[in-house]
Amino acid sequence: MAAPGTERTPRVVAARKLLRRTGRDRAGRFLVEGAQAVREALDWDGRVHELFVTGDASLRNPDLLERAAARGVPVVPVTDAAAAGLCDTVTPQGLVAVCDLLDVPVARALGAGADGAGPTFVTVCAGISDPGNVGTVTRVADAAGCDAVLLAGDTVDPHNGKAVRASTGSVFHLPLARDRDAPAVLQACRDTGLVTLVADGRGEVDLHDPAAASLLGGPVAWVLGSEAHGAGSEVLAAAEHRVRVPIHGRAESLNLATAAAICLYASVAARAAAGAPTAP
Amino acid sequence: MAAPGTERTPRVVAARKLLRRTGRDRAGRFLVEGAQAVREALDWDGRVHELFVTGDASLRNPDLLERAAARGVPVVPVTDAAAAGLCDTVTPQGLVAVCDLLDVPVARALGAGADGAGPTFVTVCAGISDPGNVGTVTRVADAAGCDAVLLAGDTVDPHNGKAVRASTGSVFHLPLARDRDAPAVLQACRDTGLVTLVADGRGEVDLHDPAAASLLGGPVAWVLGSEAHGAGSEVLAAAEHRVRVPIHGRAESLNLATAAAICLYASVAARAAAGAPTAP
Repeated sequence: MAAPGTERTPRVVAARKLLRRTGRDRAGRFLVEGAQAVREALDWDGRVHELFVTGDASLRNPDLLERAAARGVPVVPVTDAAAAGLCDTVTPQGLVAVCDLLDVPVARALGAGADGAGPTFVTVCAGISDPGNVGTVTRVADAAGCDAVLLAGDTVDPHNGKAVRASTGSVFHLPLARDRDAPAVLQACRDTGLVTLVADGRGEVDLHDPAAASLLGGPVAWVLGSEAHGAGSEVLAAAEHRVRVPIHGRAESLNLATAAAICLYASVAARAAAGAPTAP
Repeated sequence: MAAPGTERTPRVVAARKLLRRTGRDRAGRFLVEGAQAVREALDWDGRVHELFVTGDASLRNPDLLERAAARGVPVVPVTDAAAAGLCDTVTPQGLVAVCDLLDVPVARALGAGADGAGPTFVTVCAGISDPGNVGTVTRVADAAGCDAVLLAGDTVDPHNGKAVRASTGSVFHLPLARDRDAPAVLQACRDTGLVTLVADGRGEVDLHDPAAASLLGGPVAWVLGSEAHGAGSEVLAAAEHRVRVPIHGRAESLNLATAAAICLYASVAARAAAGAPTAP
Protein backbone atom coordinates (compact mmCIF):
# COMPACT_ATOMS: atom_id res chain seq x y z
CA MET A 1 0.00 0.00 0.00
CA ALA A 2 1.11 3.57 -0.64
CA ALA A 3 1.62 5.91 2.31
CA PRO A 4 -1.69 7.21 3.67
CA GLY A 5 -2.91 10.34 1.94
CA THR A 6 -3.35 13.44 4.07
CA GLU A 7 -6.17 15.95 4.05
CA ARG A 8 -4.51 17.74 1.15
CA THR A 9 -4.21 15.05 -1.56
CA PRO A 10 -6.23 15.85 -4.69
CA ARG A 11 -8.47 12.78 -4.27
CA VAL A 12 -9.38 13.71 -0.70
CA VAL A 13 -9.90 17.36 -1.62
CA ALA A 14 -12.22 16.32 -4.47
CA ALA A 15 -14.11 13.91 -2.21
CA ARG A 16 -14.63 16.54 0.49
CA LYS A 17 -16.66 18.58 -1.99
CA LEU A 18 -19.20 15.72 -2.01
CA LEU A 19 -20.22 16.58 1.57
CA ARG A 20 -22.39 19.33 0.02
CA ARG A 21 -25.31 18.91 -2.34
CA THR A 22 -23.89 21.32 -4.92
CA GLY A 23 -20.64 19.34 -4.96
CA ARG A 24 -22.52 16.06 -5.36
CA ASP A 25 -24.73 17.34 -8.14
CA ARG A 26 -21.73 18.82 -9.97
CA ALA A 27 -19.61 15.67 -9.73
CA GLY A 28 -22.47 13.19 -10.06
CA ARG A 29 -21.02 11.31 -7.08
CA PHE A 30 -21.69 10.92 -3.35
CA LEU A 31 -20.03 9.58 -0.22
CA VAL A 32 -20.95 6.36 1.54
CA GLU A 33 -19.60 6.00 5.06
CA GLY A 34 -19.19 3.10 7.45
CA ALA A 35 -18.76 -0.66 7.04
CA GLN A 36 -22.44 -1.55 6.65
CA ALA A 37 -23.19 1.06 3.99
CA VAL A 38 -19.90 0.43 2.15
CA ARG A 39 -20.79 -3.28 2.01
CA GLU A 40 -24.13 -2.39 0.39
CA ALA A 41 -22.36 -0.08 -2.07
CA LEU A 42 -19.97 -2.84 -3.10
CA ASP A 43 -22.93 -5.21 -3.64
CA TRP A 44 -24.77 -2.58 -5.69
CA ASP A 45 -24.51 -2.71 -9.47
CA GLY A 46 -23.61 0.99 -9.88
CA ARG A 47 -20.13 2.44 -10.08
CA VAL A 48 -17.90 2.77 -6.99
CA HIS A 49 -14.98 5.06 -7.87
CA GLU A 50 -12.75 4.56 -4.84
CA LEU A 51 -12.69 3.46 -1.25
CA PHE A 52 -10.87 5.58 1.32
CA VAL A 53 -9.72 3.56 4.29
CA THR A 54 -7.65 4.25 7.41
CA GLY A 55 -5.07 1.80 8.71
CA ASP A 56 -7.30 0.76 11.59
CA ALA A 57 -10.34 0.31 9.37
CA SER A 58 -8.40 -1.82 6.89
CA LEU A 59 -7.43 -4.15 9.75
CA ARG A 60 -11.05 -4.33 10.95
CA ASN A 61 -12.60 -4.94 7.51
CA PRO A 62 -10.42 -7.25 5.43
CA ASP A 63 -13.54 -8.67 3.72
CA LEU A 64 -14.48 -5.25 2.35
CA LEU A 65 -11.00 -4.66 0.96
CA GLU A 66 -11.24 -8.04 -0.77
CA ARG A 67 -14.62 -7.19 -2.25
CA ALA A 68 -13.30 -3.85 -3.45
CA ALA A 69 -10.32 -5.57 -5.08
CA ALA A 70 -12.59 -8.15 -6.71
CA ARG A 71 -14.68 -5.35 -8.20
CA GLY A 72 -11.63 -3.35 -9.31
CA VAL A 73 -12.40 -0.49 -6.93
CA PRO A 74 -9.20 1.42 -6.01
CA VAL A 75 -8.50 1.37 -2.28
CA VAL A 76 -6.94 4.64 -1.11
CA PRO A 77 -5.20 4.65 2.29
CA VAL A 78 -5.87 7.83 4.26
CA THR A 79 -5.01 9.22 7.68
CA ASP A 80 -7.60 9.26 10.45
CA ALA A 81 -7.85 13.04 10.04
CA ALA A 82 -8.48 12.77 6.29
CA ALA A 83 -11.17 10.12 6.84
CA ALA A 84 -12.81 12.22 9.55
CA GLY A 85 -12.89 15.13 7.10
CA LEU A 86 -14.98 13.02 4.72
CA CYS A 87 -17.64 12.22 7.34
CA ASP A 88 -20.38 14.17 9.03
CA THR A 89 -20.60 11.70 11.91
CA VAL A 90 -19.25 12.19 15.41
CA THR A 91 -17.48 8.81 15.41
CA PRO A 92 -16.07 8.20 11.91
CA GLN A 93 -15.48 4.56 11.02
CA GLY A 94 -12.52 5.31 8.75
CA LEU A 95 -14.18 3.82 5.68
CA VAL A 96 -15.68 6.02 2.94
CA ALA A 97 -16.64 5.03 -0.61
CA VAL A 98 -17.21 7.43 -3.51
CA CYS A 99 -20.14 6.23 -5.63
CA ASP A 100 -22.08 7.44 -8.63
CA LEU A 101 -25.35 9.14 -7.68
CA LEU A 102 -28.20 6.67 -7.32
CA ASP A 103 -31.09 8.50 -8.91
CA VAL A 104 -32.51 7.65 -12.30
CA PRO A 105 -35.17 9.47 -14.34
CA VAL A 106 -38.72 9.17 -12.97
CA ALA A 107 -39.85 7.21 -16.05
CA ARG A 108 -37.08 4.66 -15.52
CA ALA A 109 -37.86 4.28 -11.79
CA LEU A 110 -41.50 3.69 -12.70
CA GLY A 111 -40.52 1.01 -15.19
CA ALA A 112 -39.21 -1.08 -12.34
CA GLY A 113 -42.05 -3.42 -11.45
CA ALA A 114 -40.76 -6.72 -10.05
CA ASP A 115 -42.24 -8.71 -12.94
CA GLY A 116 -41.59 -6.20 -15.73
CA ALA A 117 -45.30 -5.37 -15.82
CA GLY A 118 -44.96 -1.88 -14.36
CA PRO A 119 -44.92 -0.79 -10.75
CA THR A 120 -47.73 -1.62 -8.32
CA PHE A 121 -46.44 0.06 -5.14
CA VAL A 122 -44.51 3.32 -5.06
CA THR A 123 -43.57 5.87 -2.38
CA VAL A 124 -43.39 9.57 -3.24
CA CYS A 125 -41.67 12.01 -0.86
CA ALA A 126 -43.09 15.45 -1.60
CA GLY A 127 -41.27 18.10 0.43
CA ILE A 128 -39.54 16.08 3.17
CA SER A 129 -36.76 18.31 4.49
CA ASP A 130 -35.03 16.17 7.12
CA PRO A 131 -32.45 13.77 5.65
CA GLY A 132 -33.02 11.29 8.49
CA ASN A 133 -36.69 11.14 7.52
CA VAL A 134 -35.93 10.57 3.83
CA GLY A 135 -33.61 7.73 4.80
CA THR A 136 -36.12 6.21 7.22
CA VAL A 137 -38.97 6.44 4.70
CA THR A 138 -36.77 4.77 2.07
CA ARG A 139 -36.04 1.96 4.56
CA VAL A 140 -39.76 1.49 5.26
CA ALA A 141 -40.56 1.59 1.52
CA ASP A 142 -37.91 -1.09 0.94
CA ALA A 143 -39.30 -3.26 3.77
CA ALA A 144 -42.84 -2.82 2.47
CA GLY A 145 -41.77 -4.09 -0.95
CA CYS A 146 -42.14 -0.84 -2.88
CA ASP A 147 -40.96 -0.79 -6.49
CA ALA A 148 -39.45 2.72 -6.28
CA VAL A 149 -39.07 5.85 -4.17
CA LEU A 150 -39.66 9.16 -5.95
CA LEU A 151 -38.33 12.36 -4.37
CA ALA A 152 -40.49 15.24 -5.54
CA GLY A 153 -40.69 18.96 -4.86
CA ASP A 154 -38.37 20.39 -2.20
CA THR A 155 -37.39 17.02 -0.78
CA VAL A 156 -33.87 16.80 0.64
CA ASP A 157 -31.14 14.98 -1.31
CA PRO A 158 -31.23 11.22 -0.55
CA HIS A 159 -27.43 11.18 -1.07
CA ASN A 160 -26.98 13.31 2.06
CA GLY A 161 -24.86 11.36 4.58
CA LYS A 162 -27.58 11.32 7.21
CA ALA A 163 -30.16 10.04 4.70
CA VAL A 164 -27.85 7.25 3.55
CA ARG A 165 -27.19 6.22 7.17
CA ALA A 166 -30.87 6.31 8.18
CA SER A 167 -31.75 4.12 5.19
CA THR A 168 -29.32 1.42 6.49
CA GLY A 169 -28.55 0.42 2.91
CA SER A 170 -32.05 0.72 1.46
CA VAL A 171 -31.02 3.61 -0.84
CA PHE A 172 -29.12 0.92 -2.77
CA HIS A 173 -32.05 -1.51 -2.87
CA LEU A 174 -34.70 0.17 -4.97
CA PRO A 175 -34.80 2.76 -7.76
CA LEU A 176 -34.72 6.39 -6.61
CA ALA A 177 -35.73 9.31 -8.81
CA ARG A 178 -35.77 13.06 -8.20
CA ASP A 179 -37.95 15.71 -9.82
CA ARG A 180 -38.78 19.15 -8.43
CA ASP A 181 -42.17 19.21 -10.19
CA ALA A 182 -44.34 17.29 -7.70
CA PRO A 183 -47.62 17.41 -9.67
CA ALA A 184 -45.75 16.07 -12.72
CA VAL A 185 -44.43 13.18 -10.60
CA LEU A 186 -47.97 12.36 -9.44
CA GLN A 187 -49.15 12.51 -13.06
CA ALA A 188 -46.37 10.12 -14.10
CA CYS A 189 -47.56 7.72 -11.38
CA ARG A 190 -51.15 7.91 -12.65
CA ASP A 191 -49.98 7.38 -16.20
CA THR A 192 -48.51 4.00 -15.19
CA GLY A 193 -51.81 2.94 -13.61
CA LEU A 194 -51.05 3.81 -9.97
CA VAL A 195 -53.73 5.43 -7.82
CA THR A 196 -52.22 8.40 -5.97
CA LEU A 197 -52.95 8.56 -2.22
CA VAL A 198 -51.62 11.41 -0.10
CA ALA A 199 -51.30 11.09 3.68
CA ASP A 200 -53.17 14.04 5.17
CA GLY A 201 -54.45 14.59 8.71
CA ARG A 202 -57.68 16.05 7.32
CA GLY A 203 -58.07 13.58 4.45
CA GLU A 204 -61.55 12.45 3.38
CA VAL A 205 -60.64 8.75 3.48
CA ASP A 206 -60.10 7.01 6.84
CA LEU A 207 -57.19 4.57 6.53
CA HIS A 208 -59.23 1.96 8.44
CA ASP A 209 -62.54 2.39 6.63
CA PRO A 210 -63.35 -1.09 5.29
CA ALA A 211 -64.35 0.56 2.02
CA ALA A 212 -60.76 1.80 1.64
CA ALA A 213 -59.22 -1.69 1.68
CA SER A 214 -59.58 -2.31 -2.06
CA LEU A 215 -57.99 1.08 -2.74
CA LEU A 216 -55.06 0.39 -0.39
CA GLY A 217 -54.49 -3.10 -1.73
CA GLY A 218 -54.49 -2.07 -5.38
CA PRO A 219 -51.71 -0.39 -7.36
CA VAL A 220 -50.85 2.73 -5.35
CA ALA A 221 -48.41 5.59 -5.07
CA TRP A 222 -48.33 6.82 -1.47
CA VAL A 223 -47.43 10.51 -1.27
CA LEU A 224 -45.86 11.90 1.92
CA GLY A 225 -45.62 15.66 2.47
CA SER A 226 -43.38 17.82 4.65
CA GLU A 227 -42.75 17.24 8.35
CA ALA A 228 -43.93 20.70 9.32
CA HIS A 229 -46.82 21.45 7.01
CA GLY A 230 -47.89 18.13 5.50
CA ALA A 231 -48.46 17.97 1.77
CA GLY A 232 -48.74 21.30 -0.05
CA SER A 233 -52.00 22.43 -1.62
CA GLU A 234 -50.70 21.62 -5.11
CA VAL A 235 -49.96 18.03 -4.10
CA LEU A 236 -53.23 17.65 -2.16
CA ALA A 237 -55.10 18.77 -5.26
CA ALA A 238 -53.11 16.57 -7.63
CA ALA A 239 -53.61 13.34 -5.64
CA GLU A 240 -56.70 11.25 -6.27
CA HIS A 241 -57.42 10.57 -2.58
CA ARG A 242 -56.37 12.20 0.68
CA VAL A 243 -56.09 9.56 3.42
CA ARG A 244 -55.98 10.25 7.16
CA VAL A 245 -54.48 8.01 9.82
CA PRO A 246 -57.14 7.88 12.55
CA ILE A 247 -56.07 9.42 15.88
CA HIS A 248 -57.86 7.80 18.82
CA GLY A 249 -56.14 9.45 21.77
CA ARG A 250 -55.16 13.03 22.52
CA ALA A 251 -52.09 13.23 20.30
CA GLU A 252 -52.46 15.97 17.72
CA SER A 253 -50.64 14.06 15.02
CA LEU A 254 -47.95 11.49 14.29
CA ASN A 255 -44.44 12.26 13.16
CA LEU A 256 -43.65 11.83 9.49
CA ALA A 257 -41.74 8.54 9.68
CA THR A 258 -44.32 6.77 11.86
CA ALA A 259 -47.22 8.06 9.73
CA ALA A 260 -45.41 6.85 6.60
CA ALA A 261 -44.83 3.42 8.16
CA ILE A 262 -48.51 3.12 9.13
CA CYS A 263 -49.73 4.12 5.65
CA LEU A 264 -47.30 1.93 3.68
CA TYR A 265 -47.96 -1.08 5.90
CA ALA A 266 -51.72 -0.58 5.64
CA SER A 267 -51.18 -1.19 1.94
CA VAL A 268 -48.94 -4.18 2.67
CA ALA A 269 -51.74 -5.65 4.83
CA ALA A 270 -54.40 -4.95 2.19
CA ARG A 271 -52.23 -6.50 -0.54
CA ALA A 272 -51.69 -9.60 1.62
CA ALA A 273 -55.45 -9.85 2.24
CA ALA A 274 -56.15 -9.42 -1.47
CA GLY A 275 -53.54 -12.03 -2.34
CA ALA A 276 -51.66 -9.48 -4.43
CA PRO A 277 -48.24 -10.59 -5.60
CA THR A 278 -45.49 -9.42 -3.27
CA ALA A 279 -41.81 -10.15 -3.41
CA PRO A 280 -40.81 -13.38 -1.60
CA MET B 1 -41.98 41.09 38.54
CA ALA B 2 -38.80 40.66 40.56
CA ALA B 3 -35.44 41.18 38.85
CA PRO B 4 -34.49 38.18 36.69
CA GLY B 5 -32.66 35.45 38.60
CA THR B 6 -29.17 34.60 37.44
CA GLU B 7 -27.60 31.19 37.02
CA ARG B 8 -26.74 31.20 40.71
CA THR B 9 -30.11 31.63 42.45
CA PRO B 10 -31.06 28.64 44.62
CA ARG B 11 -34.17 27.86 42.50
CA VAL B 12 -32.16 27.76 39.30
CA VAL B 13 -29.38 25.73 40.92
CA ALA B 14 -31.95 23.21 42.20
CA ALA B 15 -33.66 23.02 38.79
CA ARG B 16 -30.38 22.41 36.97
CA LYS B 17 -30.00 19.16 38.91
CA LEU B 18 -33.13 17.90 37.13
CA LEU B 19 -31.23 17.71 33.84
CA ARG B 20 -29.88 14.37 35.10
CA ARG B 21 -31.85 11.24 35.90
CA THR B 22 -30.38 10.92 39.40
CA GLY B 23 -31.40 14.49 40.17
CA ARG B 24 -34.92 13.88 38.86
CA ASP B 25 -35.38 10.67 40.79
CA ARG B 26 -34.08 12.28 44.00
CA ALA B 27 -36.31 15.38 43.72
CA GLY B 28 -39.30 13.60 42.19
CA ARG B 29 -39.47 16.42 39.62
CA PHE B 30 -38.53 17.02 35.99
CA LEU B 31 -38.11 19.87 33.52
CA VAL B 32 -40.50 20.70 30.71
CA GLU B 33 -39.15 23.02 28.04
CA GLY B 34 -40.74 25.12 25.31
CA ALA B 35 -44.13 26.71 24.77
CA GLN B 36 -45.92 23.65 23.44
CA ALA B 37 -44.81 21.29 26.20
CA VAL B 38 -45.33 23.91 28.93
CA ARG B 39 -48.89 24.41 27.66
CA GLU B 40 -49.50 20.66 28.02
CA ALA B 41 -47.98 20.71 31.51
CA LEU B 42 -50.30 23.54 32.58
CA ASP B 43 -53.31 21.59 31.23
CA TRP B 44 -52.18 18.42 33.03
CA ASP B 45 -53.71 17.63 36.41
CA GLY B 46 -50.37 16.99 38.16
CA ARG B 47 -48.35 19.52 40.10
CA VAL B 48 -46.33 22.26 38.37
CA HIS B 49 -43.96 23.80 40.92
CA GLU B 50 -42.71 26.81 39.03
CA LEU B 51 -42.28 28.30 35.58
CA PHE B 52 -38.96 29.89 34.64
CA VAL B 53 -39.33 32.49 31.94
CA THR B 54 -37.02 34.97 30.20
CA GLY B 55 -38.12 38.51 29.40
CA ASP B 56 -38.45 37.73 25.70
CA ALA B 57 -40.41 34.54 26.33
CA SER B 58 -42.83 36.33 28.67
CA LEU B 59 -43.59 38.83 25.89
CA ARG B 60 -44.09 36.02 23.37
CA ASN B 61 -46.33 33.86 25.60
CA PRO B 62 -48.72 36.04 27.63
CA ASP B 63 -51.36 33.26 27.51
CA LEU B 64 -49.05 30.82 29.27
CA LEU B 65 -48.27 33.32 32.05
CA GLU B 66 -52.01 33.82 32.51
CA ARG B 67 -52.61 30.08 32.71
CA ALA B 68 -49.79 29.71 35.22
CA ALA B 69 -51.26 32.52 37.34
CA ALA B 70 -54.73 30.96 37.17
CA ARG B 71 -53.30 27.67 38.43
CA GLY B 72 -51.24 29.35 41.15
CA VAL B 73 -47.93 28.34 39.56
CA PRO B 74 -45.15 30.76 40.56
CA VAL B 75 -43.57 32.48 37.55
CA VAL B 76 -39.83 33.03 38.06
CA PRO B 77 -38.10 35.56 35.77
CA VAL B 78 -34.65 34.39 34.66
CA THR B 79 -31.89 35.64 32.42
CA ASP B 80 -31.36 34.11 28.98
CA ALA B 81 -28.22 32.41 30.29
CA ALA B 82 -30.06 30.88 33.24
CA ALA B 83 -32.83 29.59 30.96
CA ALA B 84 -30.28 28.16 28.54
CA GLY B 85 -28.66 26.35 31.46
CA LEU B 86 -31.96 24.56 32.12
CA CYS B 87 -32.28 23.20 28.56
CA ASP B 88 -30.52 20.57 26.55
CA THR B 89 -31.65 22.07 23.24
CA VAL B 90 -29.53 24.10 20.85
CA THR B 91 -32.13 26.87 20.61
CA PRO B 92 -33.71 27.34 24.07
CA GLN B 93 -37.17 28.92 24.05
CA GLY B 94 -36.70 30.64 27.41
CA LEU B 95 -39.59 28.82 29.03
CA VAL B 96 -39.06 25.92 31.45
CA ALA B 97 -41.55 24.40 33.92
CA VAL B 98 -40.67 22.22 36.91
CA CYS B 99 -43.24 19.43 37.28
CA ASP B 100 -43.77 16.41 39.50
CA LEU B 101 -42.65 13.17 37.85
CA LEU B 102 -45.37 11.62 35.71
CA ASP B 103 -45.03 7.94 36.48
CA VAL B 104 -47.43 6.03 38.67
CA PRO B 105 -47.21 2.43 39.94
CA VAL B 106 -47.79 -0.23 37.26
CA ALA B 107 -50.99 -1.41 38.96
CA ARG B 108 -52.42 2.11 38.89
CA ALA B 109 -51.49 2.61 35.21
CA LEU B 110 -53.22 -0.68 34.41
CA GLY B 111 -56.34 0.44 36.24
CA ALA B 112 -56.77 3.19 33.69
CA GLY B 113 -59.17 1.76 31.11
CA ALA B 114 -61.27 4.48 29.49
CA ASP B 115 -64.50 3.01 30.87
CA GLY B 116 -63.22 1.91 34.28
CA ALA B 117 -63.38 -1.71 33.15
CA GLY B 118 -59.62 -2.24 32.97
CA PRO B 119 -57.26 -1.58 30.09
CA THR B 120 -57.70 -3.11 26.64
CA PHE B 121 -54.68 -1.67 24.84
CA VAL B 122 -51.29 -1.06 26.43
CA THR B 123 -47.75 -0.39 25.17
CA VAL B 124 -44.75 -1.80 27.04
CA CYS B 125 -41.24 -0.46 26.30
CA ALA B 126 -38.79 -3.16 27.35
CA GLY B 127 -35.22 -1.91 27.05
CA ILE B 128 -35.55 1.13 24.75
CA SER B 129 -32.40 3.18 25.29
CA ASP B 130 -32.88 6.23 23.06
CA PRO B 131 -34.99 8.97 24.69
CA GLY B 132 -36.25 10.15 21.29
CA ASN B 133 -37.59 6.66 20.65
CA VAL B 134 -39.36 6.49 24.02
CA GLY B 135 -40.98 9.85 23.28
CA THR B 136 -41.97 8.84 19.75
CA VAL B 137 -43.41 5.50 20.90
CA THR B 138 -45.42 7.32 23.60
CA ARG B 139 -46.77 9.67 20.92
CA VAL B 140 -47.79 6.71 18.72
CA ALA B 141 -49.35 4.91 21.71
CA ASP B 142 -51.34 8.06 22.49
CA ALA B 143 -52.51 8.41 18.87
CA ALA B 144 -53.44 4.72 18.76
CA GLY B 145 -55.64 5.16 21.82
CA CYS B 146 -53.60 3.13 24.28
CA ASP B 147 -54.68 3.15 27.92
CA ALA B 148 -51.12 3.31 29.31
CA VAL B 149 -47.41 3.12 28.48
CA LEU B 150 -45.29 0.91 30.75
CA LEU B 151 -41.51 1.40 30.79
CA ALA B 152 -39.90 -1.87 31.76
CA GLY B 153 -36.37 -3.17 32.16
CA ASP B 154 -33.52 -0.88 31.12
CA THR B 155 -35.74 1.59 29.31
CA VAL B 156 -34.57 5.21 29.37
CA ASP B 157 -36.30 7.74 31.63
CA PRO B 158 -39.39 9.22 29.88
CA HIS B 159 -38.73 12.47 31.80
CA ASN B 160 -35.52 13.00 29.84
CA GLY B 161 -35.81 16.29 27.91
CA LYS B 162 -35.44 14.62 24.53
CA ALA B 163 -38.15 12.07 25.36
CA VAL B 164 -40.54 14.80 26.48
CA ARG B 165 -39.90 16.78 23.29
CA ALA B 166 -40.28 13.76 20.98
CA SER B 167 -43.60 12.92 22.64
CA THR B 168 -44.94 16.40 21.69
CA GLY B 169 -47.07 16.43 24.85
CA SER B 170 -48.15 12.79 24.85
CA VAL B 171 -46.24 12.03 28.08
CA PHE B 172 -48.95 14.14 29.76
CA HIS B 173 -51.82 12.35 28.00
CA LEU B 174 -51.75 8.81 29.28
CA PRO B 175 -50.55 7.00 32.42
CA LEU B 176 -46.86 6.11 32.48
CA ALA B 177 -45.34 3.55 34.83
CA ARG B 178 -41.78 2.35 35.34
CA ASP B 179 -40.56 -1.00 36.64
CA ARG B 180 -37.15 -2.57 36.07
CA ASP B 181 -38.57 -6.10 36.31
CA ALA B 182 -39.81 -6.64 32.75
CA PRO B 183 -41.24 -10.17 33.22
CA ALA B 184 -43.19 -8.88 36.25
CA VAL B 185 -44.62 -6.07 34.09
CA LEU B 186 -45.74 -8.62 31.48
CA GLN B 187 -47.29 -10.75 34.22
CA ALA B 188 -49.17 -7.70 35.53
CA CYS B 189 -50.55 -7.14 32.03
CA ARG B 190 -51.69 -10.78 31.80
CA ASP B 191 -53.28 -10.52 35.22
CA THR B 192 -55.54 -7.73 33.94
CA GLY B 193 -56.64 -9.85 30.98
CA LEU B 194 -54.28 -8.48 28.33
CA VAL B 195 -52.64 -10.83 25.85
CA THR B 196 -48.91 -10.03 25.66
CA LEU B 197 -47.47 -9.68 22.13
CA VAL B 198 -43.82 -8.91 21.60
CA ALA B 199 -42.55 -7.44 18.31
CA ASP B 200 -39.78 -9.74 17.11
CA GLY B 201 -38.21 -10.08 13.65
CA ARG B 202 -38.20 -13.87 14.04
CA GLY B 203 -41.61 -14.14 15.69
CA GLU B 204 -43.84 -17.15 14.97
CA VAL B 205 -46.89 -14.98 14.19
CA ASP B 206 -47.00 -12.93 10.96
CA LEU B 207 -48.63 -9.56 11.67
CA HIS B 208 -50.67 -9.90 8.47
CA ASP B 209 -51.76 -13.52 8.88
CA PRO B 210 -55.59 -13.40 8.76
CA ALA B 211 -55.63 -15.79 11.73
CA ALA B 212 -53.83 -13.13 13.80
CA ALA B 213 -56.55 -10.51 13.39
CA SER B 214 -58.65 -11.67 16.36
CA LEU B 215 -55.52 -11.64 18.51
CA LEU B 216 -54.54 -8.13 17.40
CA GLY B 217 -58.04 -6.75 17.81
CA GLY B 218 -58.54 -8.15 21.32
CA PRO B 219 -57.16 -6.81 24.61
CA VAL B 220 -53.39 -6.59 24.05
CA ALA B 221 -50.19 -5.37 25.56
CA TRP B 222 -47.66 -4.72 22.78
CA VAL B 223 -44.09 -5.17 24.00
CA LEU B 224 -41.23 -3.37 22.21
CA GLY B 225 -37.62 -4.34 22.88
CA SER B 226 -34.34 -2.51 22.45
CA GLU B 227 -33.25 -0.69 19.28
CA ALA B 228 -30.07 -2.70 18.94
CA HIS B 229 -30.98 -6.19 20.05
CA GLY B 230 -34.78 -6.40 20.02
CA ALA B 231 -36.50 -7.89 23.03
CA GLY B 232 -34.30 -9.84 25.46
CA SER B 233 -34.68 -13.60 25.87
CA GLU B 234 -36.45 -13.13 29.21
CA VAL B 235 -39.08 -10.92 27.60
CA LEU B 236 -39.43 -13.14 24.52
CA ALA B 237 -40.09 -16.09 26.82
CA ALA B 238 -42.50 -14.19 29.07
CA ALA B 239 -44.70 -12.92 26.20
CA GLU B 240 -47.54 -15.11 24.98
CA HIS B 241 -46.87 -14.46 21.27
CA ARG B 242 -43.90 -13.20 19.27
CA VAL B 243 -45.12 -11.24 16.24
CA ARG B 244 -43.04 -10.33 13.20
CA VAL B 245 -43.64 -7.45 10.83
CA PRO B 246 -43.31 -9.00 7.36
CA ILE B 247 -40.40 -7.65 5.28
CA HIS B 248 -41.11 -7.86 1.56
CA GLY B 249 -38.10 -6.05 0.11
CA ARG B 250 -34.39 -6.25 0.83
CA ALA B 251 -34.37 -4.21 4.06
CA GLU B 252 -33.02 -6.26 6.94
CA SER B 253 -35.35 -4.72 9.46
CA LEU B 254 -37.28 -1.60 10.44
CA ASN B 255 -36.21 0.93 13.00
CA LEU B 256 -37.84 0.76 16.41
CA ALA B 257 -40.25 3.68 16.06
CA THR B 258 -41.58 2.63 12.65
CA ALA B 259 -41.94 -1.01 13.75
CA ALA B 260 -43.82 0.15 16.86
CA ALA B 261 -46.13 2.31 14.75
CA ILE B 262 -46.88 -0.56 12.38
CA CYS B 263 -47.63 -2.99 15.24
CA LEU B 264 -49.78 -0.61 17.29
CA TYR B 265 -51.75 0.51 14.25
CA ALA B 266 -52.27 -3.10 13.14
CA SER B 267 -54.15 -3.45 16.43
CA VAL B 268 -56.00 -0.16 15.81
CA ALA B 269 -57.11 -1.54 12.42
CA ALA B 270 -58.13 -4.90 13.89
CA ARG B 271 -60.07 -3.18 16.69
CA ALA B 272 -61.85 -0.99 14.15
CA ALA B 273 -62.72 -4.06 12.06
CA ALA B 274 -63.96 -5.89 15.17
CA GLY B 275 -65.99 -2.86 16.24
CA ALA B 276 -64.07 -2.71 19.52
CA PRO B 277 -64.70 0.36 21.64
CA THR B 278 -62.07 3.03 21.07
CA ALA B 279 -61.82 6.45 22.63
CA PRO B 280 -63.72 9.16 20.71
